[in-house]
Amino acid sequence: MPRAAIISKPQKPELEPILVELLAWLKDHGFEVTLDEQTAIYLGRPQDGVERTQLAAKRHQIVITLGGDGTLLSAARAFAHTGTPILGINLGSLGFLTEVPVADMYRTLESWLNGTAVLDSRWLMHTELIREGQVFRSFEALNDVVLAKGAIARMGEFAIELDRQPVANFKADGVIISTPTGSTAYTLAANGPILMPTVDAMVLTAICPHLLTIRPIVVPGHSRISVTVNVVPHETYLTVDGQEAVELQLGDRIDCCRSESSIRLLRLNENGLFNVLRQKLSWGER
Amino acid sequence: MPRAAIISKPQKPELEPILVELLAWLKDHGFEVTLDEQTAIYLGRPQDGVERTQLAAKRHQIVITLGGDGTLLSAARAFAHTGTPILGINLGSLGFLTEVPVADMYRTLESWLNGTAVLDSRWLMHTELIREGQVFRSFEALNDVVLAKGAIARMGEFAIELDRQPVANFKADGVIISTPTGSTAYTLAANGPILMPTVDAMVLTAICPHLLTIRPIVVPGHSRISVTVNVVPHETYLTVDGQEAVELQLGDRIDCCRSESSIRLLRLNENGLFNVLRQKLSWGER
Amino acid sequence: MPRAAIISKPQKPELEPILVELLAWLKDHGFEVTLDEQTAIYLGRPQDGVERTQLAAKRHQIVITLGGDGTLLSAARAFAHTGTPILGINLGSLGFLTEVPVADMYRTLESWLNGTAVLDSRWLMHTELIREGQVFRSFEALNDVVLAKGAIARMGEFAIELDRQPVANFKADGVIISTPTGSTAYTLAANGPILMPTVDAMVLTAICPHLLTIRPIVVPGHSRISVTVNVVPHETYLTVDGQEAVELQLGDRIDCCRSESSIRLLRLNENGLFNVLRQKLSWGER
Amino acid sequence: MPRAAIISKPQKPELEPILVELLAWLKDHGFEVTLDEQTAIYLGRPQDGVERTQLAAKRHQIVITLGGDGTLLSAARAFAHTGTPILGINLGSLGFLTEVPVADMYRTLESWLNGTAVLDSRWLMHTELIREGQVFRSFEALNDVVLAKGAIARMGEFAIELDRQPVANFKADGVIISTPTGSTAYTLAANGPILMPTVDAMVLTAICPHLLTIRPIVVPGHSRISVTVNVVPHETYLTVDGQEAVELQLGDRIDCCRSESSIRLLRLNENGLFNVLRQKLSWGER
Repeated sequence: MPRAAIISKPQKPELEPILVELLAWLKDHGFEVTLDEQTAIYLGRPQDGVERTQLAAKRHQIVITLGGDGTLLSAARAFAHTGTPILGINLGSLGFLTEVPVADMYRTLESWLNGTAVLDSRWLMHTELIREGQVFRSFEALNDVVLAKGAIARMGEFAIELDRQPVANFKADGVIISTPTGSTAYTLAANGPILMPTVDAMVLTAICPHLLTIRPIVVPGHSRISVTVNVVPHETYLTVDGQEAVELQLGDRIDCCRSESSIRLLRLNENGLFNVLRQKLSWGER
Repeated sequence: MPRAAIISKPQKPELEPILVELLAWLKDHGFEVTLDEQTAIYLGRPQDGVERTQLAAKRHQIVITLGGDGTLLSAARAFAHTGTPILGINLGSLGFLTEVPVADMYRTLESWLNGTAVLDSRWLMHTELIREGQVFRSFEALNDVVLAKGAIARMGEFAIELDRQPVANFKADGVIISTPTGSTAYTLAANGPILMPTVDAMVLTAICPHLLTIRPIVVPGHSRISVTVNVVPHETYLTVDGQEAVELQLGDRIDCCRSESSIRLLRLNENGLFNVLRQKLSWGER
Repeated sequence: MPRAAIISKPQKPELEPILVELLAWLKDHGFEVTLDEQTAIYLGRPQDGVERTQLAAKRHQIVITLGGDGTLLSAARAFAHTGTPILGINLGSLGFLTEVPVADMYRTLESWLNGTAVLDSRWLMHTELIREGQVFRSFEALNDVVLAKGAIARMGEFAIELDRQPVANFKADGVIISTPTGSTAYTLAANGPILMPTVDAMVLTAICPHLLTIRPIVVPGHSRISVTVNVVPHETYLTVDGQEAVELQLGDRIDCCRSESSIRLLRLNENGLFNVLRQKLSWGER
Repeated sequence: MPRAAIISKPQKPELEPILVELLAWLKDHGFEVTLDEQTAIYLGRPQDGVERTQLAAKRHQIVITLGGDGTLLSAARAFAHTGTPILGINLGSLGFLTEVPVADMYRTLESWLNGTAVLDSRWLMHTELIREGQVFRSFEALNDVVLAKGAIARMGEFAIELDRQPVANFKADGVIISTPTGSTAYTLAANGPILMPTVDAMVLTAICPHLLTIRPIVVPGHSRISVTVNVVPHETYLTVDGQEAVELQLGDRIDCCRSESSIRLLRLNENGLFNVLRQKLSWGER
């Protein structure tokens, strides 16, 4: 019996009928359904919920997220190593990752069932936090990792290396290392370029650098980009996809390279990303 | 008997002989000297120190700061209402405010004594933090006021008004409101323009705005620019000249306008600022 | 008998009925009307047309432009010294200067007649092209003056002075010097700041500068900003408000300062500019 | 007998002794030398000169350019299909492509002869100008192709496609499509990102776009990026590596993709590029 996982951000009242209908539809189509804990509680079935990080332990044929890009990001990290297709339904405004509206949910699921769906592969970035010569933590990021100082702290000081060769040193509020997928997220607000998802490269963008000649740097996916924090103001954090945070210490180093893992997004049509760019950034015809 | 105030950042060992010589020089030239508390302790004369905020209560003919722009900023706020000339000696690297090196200290003091010195007037910005309809705190800033979120917080949401007319709403990491003097400080790192010090205007610059069409906005000095924080992520702070901080609450409003106060900087020559721009930003001949 | 001048860009067929109705309305309200040459030809009354630059010789109580910002710019330069109110009706898309749509034309004219209209004063920039020590040409610009190289030329080299003090030297494709009014025109495309119209300042913005530390510079309106072209690639031009062009020669200098002249724009309401910013740049509520 | 080609920019008097010594050195090391036409004339041996575009017809073991990045760019296009190593000696200021100073010329040549030299491979971009459905011209660019309007023309209008899918439409002064190698050339002045040379991607950057949401776009090397000019102001040109120019017509389309050709630059050491970035952009230690 095929299995579907549902992950949602159960904050809005309009979610309930959508979930109820989706559960019926999946049952009708022969699926057994796993709910994440929050969704199960929201539906009054707490006993049916599985903690988000445990969900991927069972085999699923599909993951459906209902929410925004944030909900999909957390699902992506949980299911990264499984290759399970993910359908991101946006409940609010159009997202770069969740461009399928509720109105197109069943049409997209049907196209997946009959094999005509578009599966858009997105690679993740493997990140290691090195402390005192050891791997202290490691992460798989779909969008980005950010090193940033707190609100009242002075600037941090960062040393950038590429494959162990020193590239640049500068003071800044922070540094973003992003996948192509994440180039339309925080990197865009920090004045970075947009990378098409199939580019085999990462981009490093400084946040408010003190050095006026620093520009976003695009490096090959197969290379290793390292950021060492030489001055760490009080309350400097590493955050992964805007969701997981670790406080940094002096001398900590962050290494990033392309991960073996990738996710597969179910899209309504092949040009999903271009449509999102045209709509969200007004890049279209006038 | 004329009085001189000395404010220093007494962290470096090379400061001591400079201070000792300066004290002798001032005595020779008939000055009575007041020391700020830290400097007095550093010189082993704690009983002679006066707390920085109390220094301006006595009449002084001149204030001498030894350190960097940060030391001068704190002196500027303390002496803002007095009109006392301030001589900022830089001990380390060239500063936008402290462009006189130790080597030129006595020459500049002599030019001041014989009336040939250049006095560069810089106005301050009056800032009020309005909470629940009341003025909760007020400040005089020489450089800027910054509203910024913490390292792991989501974006804040800011509404900008000019003389009570709504101008813009956007999500961002923060907002900087700067005097012309402060345009070469944090504003520059956030991609803002450079304002000549005599421009009668303030500049508002967004930090990593989510709205890509937002640009730095230059408004008349006589107008009132207001920023209301409609969404306040955890640990969002107002900082004044990078030195005083207050945690913000939902609905807090910051009002800025040109202050009545100004300070007068002693410069070595009329083109001090241009020289600093050419040196610090490599704008010169090649 | 009061007089009205009409200046239009007679390219669109929909203009004719608008003009015919406006002429009748003005006659009904006791106005004698002067037409610019092109409009007169368009209406089949070539004998009634007056050359645009000659229009201001007669006294008019009001100037009405029908077209876009370009049409208004040329009217503004022609009427700059007269102080005659100008009503800019936009026929196409919303303009920064012509925010009144045809639908609001009569309402705005009536508010002017009954003294309740908003008159928005905009100052012009006096520009002199100095060649071999002489004033070779002079202009009054409402938006900006641009020094720019041709499509296949190498970069030019520009030396910037402020009140005769050297500020910066750099290679670039060009340089824009703009009034506050012009800051939302070409300056915006070249990544410059937005100046509120009442700011007493000009802004200099480099086009594709070779020197990465160059930033837009905001200078007081009463100062004189000079640009000397030290290397002039083939086909480098000075253009004024995008409409008048002079080819530049090696050593030419352009001096800009605030003009005595200003124009007065009739607006529908006091917040015209904010509304335009919110609409054209999507700065509004969401 | 091995052959070396010499291409120079013979404008400076100091070039002569350098050339004379180099010719002797090459003769001593058993090389037969071919000179480009200009160099031959400069040395008073016009009969020995070969037109630059004909040089590659003979087999050479090495090409030596003396000048700046411009001299190397023209050599690169001439020798693109041959795979011949190119040594770019800079005579003036450090170049991104010509980082070897005259002082290191013989050391670098010797390292090449003894097989310890670093050869830095740089791919070219194949560009086709499509007019009325036909390939009208084609080029191999090492740095970039630029579509740009003349000095007094209005903005052009460009439609961008990626692998035949529409991506964006906007008005701008021009558009730059660059290889990773060219990202440190004109793209940098137009506010584009820096791509490491081994990134398999091209970058499209708009020059002064009218659409404020447009950002530099990085696309995979294997994809085809197309720019169609929908509005062509008077005197709009396509330029290749800043050296070859063709006037554009309405409806012309430019297609760019990674070329099969690449060149091999002789470098003094493996970290040549990082050293150049650190020196030219002041990215180094302080």
